[in-house]
Amino acid sequence: MSESLLVVSAHAGDFVWRAGGAVALTTSRGGTATVVCLTYGERGESARAWREGHTLEEIKAIRRSEAESAADALGARIEFLDAGDYPLRPSETITDRLVHLYRELQPTVVLTHPLEDPYNGDHPVAARIALEARVLAQAIGYPAPGDPLGAPPVFFFEPHQPEQCGFVPQVLLDVTPVFETKQKAMGCLPAQQHMWSYYTDLATRRGVQLKRNAGPNLGLTSDTKAEAYMRYYPQVTTELA
Amino acid sequence: MSESLLVVSAHAGDFVWRAGGAVALTTSRGGTATVVCLTYGERGESARAWREGHTLEEIKAIRRSEAESAADALGARIEFLDAGDYPLRPSETITDRLVHLYRELQPTVVLTHPLEDPYNGDHPVAARIALEARVLAQAIGYPAPGDPLGAPPVFFFEPHQPEQCGFVPQVLLDVTPVFETKQKAMGCLPAQQHMWSYYTDLATRRGVQLKRNAGPNLGLTSDTKAEAYMRYYPQVTTELA
Amino acid sequence: MSESLLVVSAHAGDFVWRAGGAVALTTSRGGTATVVCLTYGERGESARAWREGHTLEEIKAIRRSEAESAADALGARIEFLDAGDYPLRPSETITDRLVHLYRELQPTVVLTHPLEDPYNGDHPVAARIALEARVLAQAIGYPAPGDPLGAPPVFFFEPHQPEQCGFVPQVLLDVTPVFETKQKAMGCLPAQQHMWSYYTDLATRRGVQLKRNAGPNLGLTSDTKAEAYMRYYPQVTTELA
Amino acid sequence: MSESLLVVSAHAGDFVWRAGGAVALTTSRGGTATVVCLTYGERGESARAWREGHTLEEIKAIRRSEAESAADALGARIEFLDAGDYPLRPSETITDRLVHLYRELQPTVVLTHPLEDPYNGDHPVAARIALEARVLAQAIGYPAPGDPLGAPPVFFFEPHQPEQCGFVPQVLLDVTPVFETKQKAMGCLPAQQHMWSYYTDLATRRGVQLKRNAGPNLGLTSDTKAEAYMRYYPQVTTELA
Amino acid sequence: MSESLLVVSAHAGDFVWRAGGAVALTTSRGGTATVVCLTYGERGESARAWREGHTLEEIKAIRRSEAESAADALGARIEFLDAGDYPLRPSETITDRLVHLYRELQPTVVLTHPLEDPYNGDHPVAARIALEARVLAQAIGYPAPGDPLGAPPVFFFEPHQPEQCGFVPQVLLDVTPVFETKQKAMGCLPAQQHMWSYYTDLATRRGVQLKRNAGPNLGLTSDTKAEAYMRYYPQVTTELA
Amino acid sequence: MSESLLVVSAHAGDFVWRAGGAVALTTSRGGTATVVCLTYGERGESARAWREGHTLEEIKAIRRSEAESAADALGARIEFLDAGDYPLRPSETITDRLVHLYRELQPTVVLTHPLEDPYNGDHPVAARIALEARVLAQAIGYPAPGDPLGAPPVFFFEPHQPEQCGFVPQVLLDVTPVFETKQKAMGCLPAQQHMWSYYTDLATRRGVQLKRNAGPNLGLTSDTKAEAYMRYYPQVTTELA
Repeated sequence: MSESLLVVSAHAGDFVWRAGGAVALTTSRGGTATVVCLTYGERGESARAWREGHTLEEIKAIRRSEAESAADALGARIEFLDAGDYPLRPSETITDRLVHLYRELQPTVVLTHPLEDPYNGDHPVAARIALEARVLAQAIGYPAPGDPLGAPPVFFFEPHQPEQCGFVPQVLLDVTPVFETKQKAMGCLPAQQHMWSYYTDLATRRGVQLKRNAGPNLGLTSDTKAEAYMRYYPQVTTELA
Repeated sequence: MSESLLVVSAHAGDFVWRAGGAVALTTSRGGTATVVCLTYGERGESARAWREGHTLEEIKAIRRSEAESAADALGARIEFLDAGDYPLRPSETITDRLVHLYRELQPTVVLTHPLEDPYNGDHPVAARIALEARVLAQAIGYPAPGDPLGAPPVFFFEPHQPEQCGFVPQVLLDVTPVFETKQKAMGCLPAQQHMWSYYTDLATRRGVQLKRNAGPNLGLTSDTKAEAYMRYYPQVTTELA
Repeated sequence: MSESLLVVSAHAGDFVWRAGGAVALTTSRGGTATVVCLTYGERGESARAWREGHTLEEIKAIRRSEAESAADALGARIEFLDAGDYPLRPSETITDRLVHLYRELQPTVVLTHPLEDPYNGDHPVAARIALEARVLAQAIGYPAPGDPLGAPPVFFFEPHQPEQCGFVPQVLLDVTPVFETKQKAMGCLPAQQHMWSYYTDLATRRGVQLKRNAGPNLGLTSDTKAEAYMRYYPQVTTELA
Repeated sequence: MSESLLVVSAHAGDFVWRAGGAVALTTSRGGTATVVCLTYGERGESARAWREGHTLEEIKAIRRSEAESAADALGARIEFLDAGDYPLRPSETITDRLVHLYRELQPTVVLTHPLEDPYNGDHPVAARIALEARVLAQAIGYPAPGDPLGAPPVFFFEPHQPEQCGFVPQVLLDVTPVFETKQKAMGCLPAQQHMWSYYTDLATRRGVQLKRNAGPNLGLTSDTKAEAYMRYYPQVTTELA
Repeated sequence: MSESLLVVSAHAGDFVWRAGGAVALTTSRGGTATVVCLTYGERGESARAWREGHTLEEIKAIRRSEAESAADALGARIEFLDAGDYPLRPSETITDRLVHLYRELQPTVVLTHPLEDPYNGDHPVAARIALEARVLAQAIGYPAPGDPLGAPPVFFFEPHQPEQCGFVPQVLLDVTPVFETKQKAMGCLPAQQHMWSYYTDLATRRGVQLKRNAGPNLGLTSDTKAEAYMRYYPQVTTELA
Repeated sequence: MSESLLVVSAHAGDFVWRAGGAVALTTSRGGTATVVCLTYGERGESARAWREGHTLEEIKAIRRSEAESAADALGARIEFLDAGDYPLRPSETITDRLVHLYRELQPTVVLTHPLEDPYNGDHPVAARIALEARVLAQAIGYPAPGDPLGAPPVFFFEPHQPEQCGFVPQVLLDVTPVFETKQKAMGCLPAQQHMWSYYTDLATRRGVQLKRNAGPNLGLTSDTKAEAYMRYYPQVTTELA
């Protein structure tokens, strides 16, 4: 089965910083990737635009355009559900739209936020919506077109302050071959420039840990880059490794 | 690199019930597997033999012979360190012998008991010895022949009462293709006949869960068999799946 | 005080698989048992009926009829709140109806789902409704007829994948004397035939653990059957045992 | 089977403050109770005696005599293993003596300290010794006279700073009928007079919680006294209550 | 910056029992304190008034008047949002009013309930509202007058049954100098007279622990009084102490 | 009371990377700081020296000299107990020497490793020795010269892979004013040059989090540096902040 990645992101930029490598890896191998932004992050993650005096609608347009460029750089399709942020509220409508997307896309892998974040309430809400819609899409009795969904694994990507969110890296994904692509995608989000180096440093740090868990400690001098993930369901495999 | 599996088992029978499938999978694919039994389980897991009036030495010989047959059925090499059970005590000697084995075998995967077991104190002790020796073997400064060990992943196999041991299945390993081999190995341990059906039922149950986490729920009628494992270190990978 | 058991179940079948033994034990001793099904499980747990082409109303009727038969076999009264499943949503109405039932029934023991279940979002929702209504029913100021409720203990019954739901057996209930009754009740749910053997195996497994925790290990050959539960509140007792 | 309680206590006074009610309840009902003090608490819990200038041997004699009086008041037999405190070290000898006691006494219930205590390292050590000896005593192959032990439940009594020790009351034991006896026993330990009111207040507080979890909230004015315990193994029962 | 304390309390009395000392300390030093009662506790915490036959509106008036007196005794301003208790439901309106208050008051410290309470569902709901409003108030894009909020630390005060609520004292606040003031405030709540001694005993107990963690064990005879708190965010400091 | 800091470090370099800022802050304010290195890290943390062919004694001398220079740069006294690393084993002797040091130094603050580290078994062993000795030093009955120790708070410094060690930053210490001093101390350890940038990046990252938890989000552009710590005991304070 060919790889089909679905990323459910609370705000327009989240998928770039936290899962850009996974998205680029998938598309670089010929798989498809779809990013669903539940909101534009217009209120909660656009401080600079507000300080510059833009209106709400302008800010949404700016964020949308930036996120489209970033998705484009990563080779991903992107959808905006415009559910409103800060606070993002769960609703029947949003969940239902996501169920429809699951049925249509039949993703083989799902990425979203972790379930706790004391600094940003929208992130756990987005994760719960993504998880609930996935389970609903599995039920033949749920009224949406398409076949019932299988059981694609779910991974949580790394939050900004991992230790305060109960985030423990369980999977270290080697994103070295696509890290330049991720950097290009980050470059599409100029309002958060301080994040570029922050997430580059993080990728280096996770890379060091990847090597530490991967085999002989070769001196920690290389430039391996990694992203960290947690699993929500057990791994299914035919080989321990 | 060809697969080299190391199983560190507190007593002579543990590796059969709990990791027999993983061992058989490895050897069936052309990898090598080595089982290290720290003790024969002569005091703690040989109730029937004691009731039949055997001496300590006879019991050790019986358990050794049974375990050798089981290892043979699984295609594995087996070593006995005879450290004495109930209680198994950590010692410099045992740890050092295990470090030597790590350096010699250079395993690519390590299996052992989980770190908690309120019903059997030897199991966590065996796990701690296995983990400590692995870290020591990684240090170039540790005085043992051979190259420093890399960083082989460590998996904990499933204890008898998983929920009381903090055991949560993180990896469900499909052992269907080798389950007959595992059954043959279990047959080499006639004193614990009630375990045969117990561990066959468990493999069925874990198989049901494997399917539930692997994709479409196809009706739960098949005969998939699985073993459950936990990871001690993060998974390192080039692909989320 | 005579025993009065209340079971709050998300879907029509849950109480049979997971608490059928406890219900039968209560009624076999002359106590009363009431099962409240918040939904029929019409969307989420009726895959076969959907595949056979039934309509929503037909499926609800089928599930209702089956659940009535099963409750009858167990000697229990059954109520259906028809709140709608997949997703079951909390609502003022459902909670209020449940408060009225608590006040009317004055249960001495309450059973419901555990608070986590990554495979089925309706289960934790049902549990939260059951717990909230219980606390509201205790307050004299809550506007519902009848005396304020006392403090009946709450037990969570075992979910389908216990380890993934944070479920640790804290109470092992010996249901051997009524296990045939439970099997009859399971027989009333023909659409989920694979569950019959699954939950019989589980009862055997929990029976083995019961004996392991109950006293001398008599050989694990007997046919003790058990159900596992967790407590939500501390046990109150006049004797440690 | 008649009740036989075994209390494993790190120091001479621990069993009085923390389990005096349970001991008195047992003996008041015609059961037997044995207290094993691993040490006299001569170094770690005898500050006043040291300040008064007593020698080590004098202090041990004082503590022994006080503990004997307290045990006497509670109707319990008492044994001193004199293993040395601050630090109490695990040893083959102490464990073996305790295995012999388990085999001899065949306790139906075991009480000891919880497994964590950041304020007193001897307490967890005592608990681990008590637990290890219990498991060893169950094995027919362990060389000690008497029948193998069954599986008596183990309860942890409440430490001085419960929240810092991971202690969550799981069992609230009503000790009202014997609370005067407990107070007499506390009176036998004059050097720790500030503890009398401290543990009387605690019993009142746990009594309030007992009533809160036991049924209708009758106004919290009564003088119910309780002790709190945690379970190490699941409860085995024929009735949920 | 001068100290500005904000207490978010589910019911009218909570802030007195659990945070009265902290409030009095703040005002005694010249800082300001504002208490926000989301409800009057008219249904869930006014059992006596209901038994005396008062109407809902009378009870709200009584509770309001008592809470005003208590706040007055502590030197605090008090606000009532009258959101309705048992159950307290989250709503856009309440959250928005609280955001406005955060922006207006610019508190330097925030106190509220912990996030779990199996005995009282309103408490965690109040905490979540308090936390969510705080994060929203930080976002420049949230439509409310005033400057965006900084990042005031949040402390959870101690619930009635701390161990059942996952409450572990992380901060022991010495309230000895203002304990008489707290007692006066408690005296303003005559309907819950049994709480006066309960919370005085608790303050003594936390005082004993404070001394145990503060330095030399001086004999535990003094009358230090303390309140316990948990932190929701990491402490920021220029000195370890 | 003037500040007296004690750092208990498993190997010669640990205190520099993980607590250099706290040490420098203390001495920069006129307090004293003592570092106790239980071992030189001669086997486990000297890979380069082994690869260069040095003998064990040479390596110890190199590590000692480097650590002395680093301590000097930080203004701290340093002691080496030479207990032997990889593995570091607990012993009566080491503990007793540390008790003597606690009595002699009467530290007001203690820093050591956290209690878990799957990558380095010596770290938790060092922490347990440090904690045990602290409790023993508090007991007047422990035979060592000097007054019994008070109750200095204990902080765990940050391990190399914090999330895998259960490390959650609870205290963010602003070390900006002394960060250059810390960098000088790091420069004294030339064999681990890759650590210089690693721990500089970490200090930046913790600095960003400090600001995020300290007040208004001023743009994350500044060069605040921080170290993260966990507390082992509750904080005692006269003011919530």
